[in-house]
Amino acid sequence: MPDELPSLDYRFATQPSLPGKGLAPEDIADCELSTAALEGLRRRIQAGEVGFTRLAYDQTTPRSIASFARDARFQNFLLIGIGGSSLGAQALLAALKPWYHNWVAGRRGARFFVLDNVDADLVERTLSMLKPRDTLVNVVSKSGTTAETAANFMIVRRWLIRSLGNKFARHVVATTDPEKGELRALAREEGFATFPVPSDVGGRFSVLTAVGLLPAHFMGVSIRQLLSGARAMAELGLSQALPGNLPLLSALILYRFRTRGRSTQVFMPYASNLQAFADWYRQLWAESLGKKVDRSGRVVNAGQALLSSIGTIDQHSQVQLLREGPDDKIVFFLDVKRPGRQVRIPRDLQKYPSSAYLGGRTLTELMRAERRATEIALASDERPSMSISIPRVDAFSIGALIMFFELQTAFAGEMLGINAYDQPGVEEGKLNTFALMGRPGYDERRTALARYE
Amino acid sequence: MPDELPSLDYRFATQPSLPGKGLAPEDIADCELSTAALEGLRRRIQAGEVGFTRLAYDQTTPRSIASFARDARFQNFLLIGIGGSSLGAQALLAALKPWYHNWVAGRRGARFFVLDNVDADLVERTLSMLKPRDTLVNVVSKSGTTAETAANFMIVRRWLIRSLGNKFARHVVATTDPEKGELRALAREEGFATFPVPSDVGGRFSVLTAVGLLPAHFMGVSIRQLLSGARAMAELGLSQALPGNLPLLSALILYRFRTRGRSTQVFMPYASNLQAFADWYRQLWAESLGKKVDRSGRVVNAGQALLSSIGTIDQHSQVQLLREGPDDKIVFFLDVKRPGRQVRIPRDLQKYPSSAYLGGRTLTELMRAERRATEIALASDERPSMSISIPRVDAFSIGALIMFFELQTAFAGEMLGINAYDQPGVEEGKLNTFALMGRPGYDERRTALARYE
Repeated sequence: MPDELPSLDYRFATQPSLPGKGLAPEDIADCELSTAALEGLRRRIQAGEVGFTRLAYDQTTPRSIASFARDARFQNFLLIGIGGSSLGAQALLAALKPWYHNWVAGRRGARFFVLDNVDADLVERTLSMLKPRDTLVNVVSKSGTTAETAANFMIVRRWLIRSLGNKFARHVVATTDPEKGELRALAREEGFATFPVPSDVGGRFSVLTAVGLLPAHFMGVSIRQLLSGARAMAELGLSQALPGNLPLLSALILYRFRTRGRSTQVFMPYASNLQAFADWYRQLWAESLGKKVDRSGRVVNAGQALLSSIGTIDQHSQVQLLREGPDDKIVFFLDVKRPGRQVRIPRDLQKYPSSAYLGGRTLTELMRAERRATEIALASDERPSMSISIPRVDAFSIGALIMFFELQTAFAGEMLGINAYDQPGVEEGKLNTFALMGRPGYDERRTALARYE
Repeated sequence: MPDELPSLDYRFATQPSLPGKGLAPEDIADCELSTAALEGLRRRIQAGEVGFTRLAYDQTTPRSIASFARDARFQNFLLIGIGGSSLGAQALLAALKPWYHNWVAGRRGARFFVLDNVDADLVERTLSMLKPRDTLVNVVSKSGTTAETAANFMIVRRWLIRSLGNKFARHVVATTDPEKGELRALAREEGFATFPVPSDVGGRFSVLTAVGLLPAHFMGVSIRQLLSGARAMAELGLSQALPGNLPLLSALILYRFRTRGRSTQVFMPYASNLQAFADWYRQLWAESLGKKVDRSGRVVNAGQALLSSIGTIDQHSQVQLLREGPDDKIVFFLDVKRPGRQVRIPRDLQKYPSSAYLGGRTLTELMRAERRATEIALASDERPSMSISIPRVDAFSIGALIMFFELQTAFAGEMLGINAYDQPGVEEGKLNTFALMGRPGYDERRTALARYE
């Protein structure tokens, strides 16, 4: 049986299940908007402007990762990166490795640690768990100039040198721009192994480059399966029309609701190990679409906030607001049909009505009933939702989901007419940080900021 | 020196820093709305309707917890609960215990595990990490009828019995309603130790009852310090007028922005160990204020979504959207002035401009500069924000913050004229779950739901 691709259930986003506020058949049919989005993305890919779909077909990077890993055997893998340089690897670890991976004997793959913040406690406590000689440090920064990554790497580099002397460079692998940037120059000078982040792939679209695949391989995640899932979804998403083109269809549904005032998307996977995946998607969606101007320069303040939740947990935290609060959201559920394990609830406590009905059922049956119960409850208040289902949380499905959400984001960017691949709004804060930290060349800005002290 | 209470900096929410969209002095001055909110809450407290502020003064619960803990020495503390029954304890653990608490030798306090979801992988992997004889199981449900908690407890109870036989009850402590409910009845029948959740304290306001304090004590967190911080804030919040009454002031600021169309609050602590605290606050704020009708029965669909973010991480994930996307948010930063540790960045790599300026500075200086840089960047686009500062992340400050956010939520509920203490919108989903799981008595609903299969 070939691996099963995700499926999309949008009945609670459409009429007649949602009679008043649901989308009509013509809203989600093949149309000029959807055709233009598909053609627009294809054109950007052909023009070499957008590279993320190509990654699913790349055989060079997996080969060089495998070759590098054969000679680099370490007990610990320490990733230094932030935002798009760490969220993807964290999502893969949480989804695809067992709970408590780092802490069990007989684990498959290295232990995985991340320094994704300039947090003194985090940095000091993490280093105290590791011995330099057992640790491979992966410093990840596409530009090579990210302040947080530079600061943490300077600390970790010194920690390595203190213990290993001039052999420390064998414990460092840098993932950065293939040619440019200070991290590339430093890697040349100090002799670090390196992996490239292709110049046509932005940070938040980079999980299927070495940014995500190198840590994945060291943790023992199958790159081959990941890319196989991504490839299957890329083929679907770049060739088919509606309704078979699932990422294009979900982009269109989200676009329709966005233009009807729904400024927040609630992404709610029913699986505790997809929390980090939700955070990865949150960056992808929010940073790609949150744009002041469209491609013609018109001020649009586009974008949609993404509130990540976990079912069933956040039924007890967010559903009250979702059902009764401001009607400005669309909920996107993720359903896992057949998880790896079945845990059966024993037939005990039969005289207690709140327990008795659960006896003999599995946790998965309860989990799936809760999701269904919640989408129906939302629909009964005319609050729209849709669901994506995967057969199980494995490398193939996660690869497919990664490509699904990347394509959906790219299509939504085309529909909104914005550039989904830049982040001009982050620049101002970076310059302010340089000024406040006394970086040479920023004196004028520093003087201007002094009035806020 | 007495412990220092949090402080509030709201200049970037007000004129003149935010000339166009900032609040005017009269918007945040003592007014009928703020006075009525303060008096309203005081009245509910006196009427015995609202109990959360009283918890800061409770000496009975801490004493009975200490007494119970003297005879119950366990290596592992396993909490079974969901929503308000687990988020508080998880926030305390993450904030107040060192990173990797469970995994280091010489830890102070028990190891802490949580089953907060009916997730088969989570449940099975967690139990595989524990031995029944070393484990105290704390089952927490105010109503005693929560499906997820019942299901997980049935599994864990059987796991205990298989190994310990009829001595298993010594390994169970139930936190539930003092009189009513099936968990209370079961505890009586099986002889579990119990702690009460007072009937005038709802789940999301219950972290300072045994719901949060029992796990805190077992983990080695100082209950005395927590309550001392909470008490100091309760005294401020129930006695003072504006502008000294910080929770009342922040409630008013958030209310003003809410009525001007800002339907999302972004809560962004600059400390990685406050992620779980942000999730606790997210439930408190969203579930308390997200209400369809006000106290007079008028349909208002009140409430504000809470998007929790962590600085600096989410500068690289959310700030693009916050600066350039829809202008419908207010950002609430949390700043830690002097964390426990100082980690200095070495003066290396001086020929690399992106590293050189960081040499000699501390991670905390960089963290605080980043927050300041971000609030100024937001203000330059007329995007409002405010900041709460704490001296450090310790039990006193966390206790003070818990009471701060609870009071702020209660005041905002008064201003909105809604009942901040119920959750009617969760009921429908619960009934649907009963029906889908075949609970006796729900046949009619089950038939009605069959059309969605």
